[in-house]
Amino acid sequence: MQHDYAGTIQRIYEEIQSLRGQGAPASYIPELAKVQSDQIGLCVQTLEGKCFGVGAYQTPFSTQSISKLFTFVQAIQEMGEHLWSRVGNEPSGNTFNSLVQLENENGIPRNPFINAGALVISDVLLEIYDDPYQKLLDLIRELSGNPHIHFDEKVALSEIATGHRNAALAHFMKSFGTIHCEVEDVLRFYCYQCSIAMSCEDLSKSVLFLANQGVNPQNGQVILNPSRTKRTGALLMTSGLYNESGDFAYRVGIPAKSGVGGGIAGFVPQHFGTAVWCPELNSRGNSLIGIQALELLTTYSGVSVF
Amino acid sequence: MQHDYAGTIQRIYEEIQSLRGQGAPASYIPELAKVQSDQIGLCVQTLEGKCFGVGAYQTPFSTQSISKLFTFVQAIQEMGEHLWSRVGNEPSGNTFNSLVQLENENGIPRNPFINAGALVISDVLLEIYDDPYQKLLDLIRELSGNPHIHFDEKVALSEIATGHRNAALAHFMKSFGTIHCEVEDVLRFYCYQCSIAMSCEDLSKSVLFLANQGVNPQNGQVILNPSRTKRTGALLMTSGLYNESGDFAYRVGIPAKSGVGGGIAGFVPQHFGTAVWCPELNSRGNSLIGIQALELLTTYSGVSVF
Amino acid sequence: MQHDYAGTIQRIYEEIQSLRGQGAPASYIPELAKVQSDQIGLCVQTLEGKCFGVGAYQTPFSTQSISKLFTFVQAIQEMGEHLWSRVGNEPSGNTFNSLVQLENENGIPRNPFINAGALVISDVLLEIYDDPYQKLLDLIRELSGNPHIHFDEKVALSEIATGHRNAALAHFMKSFGTIHCEVEDVLRFYCYQCSIAMSCEDLSKSVLFLANQGVNPQNGQVILNPSRTKRTGALLMTSGLYNESGDFAYRVGIPAKSGVGGGIAGFVPQHFGTAVWCPELNSRGNSLIGIQALELLTTYSGVSVF
Amino acid sequence: MQHDYAGTIQRIYEEIQSLRGQGAPASYIPELAKVQSDQIGLCVQTLEGKCFGVGAYQTPFSTQSISKLFTFVQAIQEMGEHLWSRVGNEPSGNTFNSLVQLENENGIPRNPFINAGALVISDVLLEIYDDPYQKLLDLIRELSGNPHIHFDEKVALSEIATGHRNAALAHFMKSFGTIHCEVEDVLRFYCYQCSIAMSCEDLSKSVLFLANQGVNPQNGQVILNPSRTKRTGALLMTSGLYNESGDFAYRVGIPAKSGVGGGIAGFVPQHFGTAVWCPELNSRGNSLIGIQALELLTTYSGVSVF
Repeated sequence: MQHDYAGTIQRIYEEIQSLRGQGAPASYIPELAKVQSDQIGLCVQTLEGKCFGVGAYQTPFSTQSISKLFTFVQAIQEMGEHLWSRVGNEPSGNTFNSLVQLENENGIPRNPFINAGALVISDVLLEIYDDPYQKLLDLIRELSGNPHIHFDEKVALSEIATGHRNAALAHFMKSFGTIHCEVEDVLRFYCYQCSIAMSCEDLSKSVLFLANQGVNPQNGQVILNPSRTKRTGALLMTSGLYNESGDFAYRVGIPAKSGVGGGIAGFVPQHFGTAVWCPELNSRGNSLIGIQALELLTTYSGVSVF
Repeated sequence: MQHDYAGTIQRIYEEIQSLRGQGAPASYIPELAKVQSDQIGLCVQTLEGKCFGVGAYQTPFSTQSISKLFTFVQAIQEMGEHLWSRVGNEPSGNTFNSLVQLENENGIPRNPFINAGALVISDVLLEIYDDPYQKLLDLIRELSGNPHIHFDEKVALSEIATGHRNAALAHFMKSFGTIHCEVEDVLRFYCYQCSIAMSCEDLSKSVLFLANQGVNPQNGQVILNPSRTKRTGALLMTSGLYNESGDFAYRVGIPAKSGVGGGIAGFVPQHFGTAVWCPELNSRGNSLIGIQALELLTTYSGVSVF
Repeated sequence: MQHDYAGTIQRIYEEIQSLRGQGAPASYIPELAKVQSDQIGLCVQTLEGKCFGVGAYQTPFSTQSISKLFTFVQAIQEMGEHLWSRVGNEPSGNTFNSLVQLENENGIPRNPFINAGALVISDVLLEIYDDPYQKLLDLIRELSGNPHIHFDEKVALSEIATGHRNAALAHFMKSFGTIHCEVEDVLRFYCYQCSIAMSCEDLSKSVLFLANQGVNPQNGQVILNPSRTKRTGALLMTSGLYNESGDFAYRVGIPAKSGVGGGIAGFVPQHFGTAVWCPELNSRGNSLIGIQALELLTTYSGVSVF
Repeated sequence: MQHDYAGTIQRIYEEIQSLRGQGAPASYIPELAKVQSDQIGLCVQTLEGKCFGVGAYQTPFSTQSISKLFTFVQAIQEMGEHLWSRVGNEPSGNTFNSLVQLENENGIPRNPFINAGALVISDVLLEIYDDPYQKLLDLIRELSGNPHIHFDEKVALSEIATGHRNAALAHFMKSFGTIHCEVEDVLRFYCYQCSIAMSCEDLSKSVLFLANQGVNPQNGQVILNPSRTKRTGALLMTSGLYNESGDFAYRVGIPAKSGVGGGIAGFVPQHFGTAVWCPELNSRGNSLIGIQALELLTTYSGVSVF
């Protein structure tokens, strides 16, 4: 018998209200700082096709680093295991925008889900695709079933103008030869990715193929083969929440990807995709209420990876 | 229908023969360097109580860091979440015996499965138990059903005499106040733990409770509650193979713990416990053939966490 | 009685010939890689106004990081001790273009003579002067008495186009707020400084005021007061040769500044200014033959700081 | 005409009184914490044989790391340039007891004046001398002309019992093979060195040979040849005050060695030896008032290295 997700997410929604105000929205991206920070959305999308949502679960927000999941999927689709000559697959242990590890490891980022790694993935896609911008929208629109998903140009330009840390990462990797394209082009594509706005409902649907051995259950299309699907899940588990990945795995126990917009998208194989959103971040740049909501979701549903 | 584990492990055993000679046994512990390095054992123990073994699966070997799993279980049993004030739960990103992270993070080890963290766990158990040596043997003998498991004093004394890196870690943490007991006592208990000799069969049985929500299926005894069981699995997934944890998760996709004796023990929830042994190590101190065997096991059985 | 500098530099010139071919010119700046690398020049300029030169001592070469000495002099002239809120005064212990230290120390470079520090000095001068380019030429032309000294635009543009490591440093510091002006402007001014071409004779004369308590002996003009002169000497002693400063002080024992063009300029208080040039660099980016020549100069003349 | 050192040190003594209470004595060595922390002593010993002292300049205090200067002199006497295969000659950039650099550089300490380096020097002397304890006392008694100088056993035993950081350094280097003798023997000799009690007058006399090209002016004995004397001075200049060496060189401009007992001993070639003592330390472990006193001494006397 299916778990009562409707009841569970309602219960969670009530319990997490008391955590409001303990985190703070990302301030370093001017456009993001303007978002009303007390919004909360939570959505569970089951493999059987049922969608359970609560709060602002249909409000689009800036996906930011969650988009790294989709560009990674494109890169592994195209390059397979060859990808790992360009980027590592180990947890970083450092903050999402650290340069220290890069200097010690010859400009090879630790994994595709920290900023440095995602810049390499952007570089890879710029080399492979004629129009990587359109390709990315195509994938996300198809996965989510929402043809209206788009880049938020205001957010993208805001990040390009103020993203000196990302520019440092990209120039640094260029100096090592890890980045092949022009630094400006890589930074531009990267910032556009991050600007994509999606709702919890969009995201829950978009990660559902990862819970289904790589097949989009909505149309039967194969996105990744079972082996790569498993591997993507493992990578998310060990590296999806920056230097909080270990604690998230410990508390929540599911593969997931977070973003500084306050969203987190994850899934449980054979069960569901899920996404949560609240812009108030903890000290490691992840949604404080979002993590708590997902911890309660795996606790109350009794469903996790382990 | 149950997977044909007997056939699968036989097939794996044949395929991995070609990898012999590519790794090298640990040389820094004199007693370990004496072990005949071309031995291979593999065992799968199902929740239904069936045991499938191949090669030297009944030969005891030095568990080394695999023992960190059992001391961690004791510490979390006794201290619960309070344990995390003494040690972290994030992947380390560094080698198993690194001191760098400790200095940058005020003497708190990144997780219980690197040497520094296991020294803290030893310190915790020395504070809690009157006779932690006996307590540890009691637990392992009960989990494995093998009353003959014992400390290998020759190995222990060999490590105490030559373990300057561990002595450095312990004194360093003592200087930060992370270690409470006498450094010599902590090092002694730690080295005795590492010296415990077990076979693949012993280990497969000993981790089975982790695949069974914390209950030892052989006698129904509760070792950990379901939540702590889940959390132990997550911790193993993100940190069980030192700085190769990410790659192991990526390739194999199960929670596991490795040791420099060449053993790896892991499990798949609701399915089985497993252990593999071959003393030839790769450059990161993990069994080269062992990792390959487990990768084939999850591939051929189609059973993994993700 | 004055030392026989003419005889000494001739003797040195002969002895260092045997070291040819052991180093290699900087390859990462395309324009520099084209320089004929077996040229050697050595010059000593005494406080009494005598100039002793040997080899290619009148051939202009790319001063590169030696120019950091002159921009530092301008910055300390203008800002005095306030300068130290923007940059440190400790030896770096890392390579000239390292980012690691910056990340650990909130974007404040360790000293003005590593690249990060010189970028901050450039930023300071851009804020202070209307035309910092002209101001710098004015100072160097006056100190050297050579009105023909100029920027080598080809070298400057070559470095701007390929200097991704410097771009990374500048963007990184901009993200910390250490850099105030536009990153592009700072990088441009920095690369133009580095491109200044001077001969050993020009450089020997240009550092002479540092051996004379801050007064240019050629025209009596006060460049720095005695206290700041002393302090500039100390800073050169501890940090003038990147992460080889300690060994250079140990072997040679005089304040000096090196550049990847293969030049080194130094001085002995109350005695002389000196410069040496040979493009073949050692593994730490300093002129291999240049260091040996200066070691012989202090040994044979019996004149050093200690 | 000789500078009026008597008047100068009296003036300095009065001016520095206002700085009392801004620092704090070392607390991590129990015996040192007991010292009355508001004592100040200052002494200048000229090459002409005159001694000028003020305040508690004849009160013995714990030399601590100042003793590293004398063991270094013994090691360079015995091993010459071969010493540098065991220890480096570059400034460390890290605190006096850091382990980070050791791990990154294969267990070779950056220089002989940080704790790790002095432990290696101790190891070297234990290998060379039958009775290194007596040899060290012999040297210091002869240099100072004070036959009563001795080890303070209470301080030595206090440091042996609590010196976990030094034990960590020694075991760590032993694991790299940098330390040859037994770790316990090295730590014991090291702690005994540090415990040597000397007054400012003793120290001023003991460093005088370094201001005199290596010859003890009191009895004409050659301690070091001129080249090694020069090199020892350079090493002190770049590394004598831990990670404050650059700032000390900048402000004071003389070669010197500090200790956590609150003493600093230094010299100006051809002029004088000097020592200052006040147990109140700044945040980098150096005597706050001591540094200020020496800055005033070089300012008022107009005598420095640069």
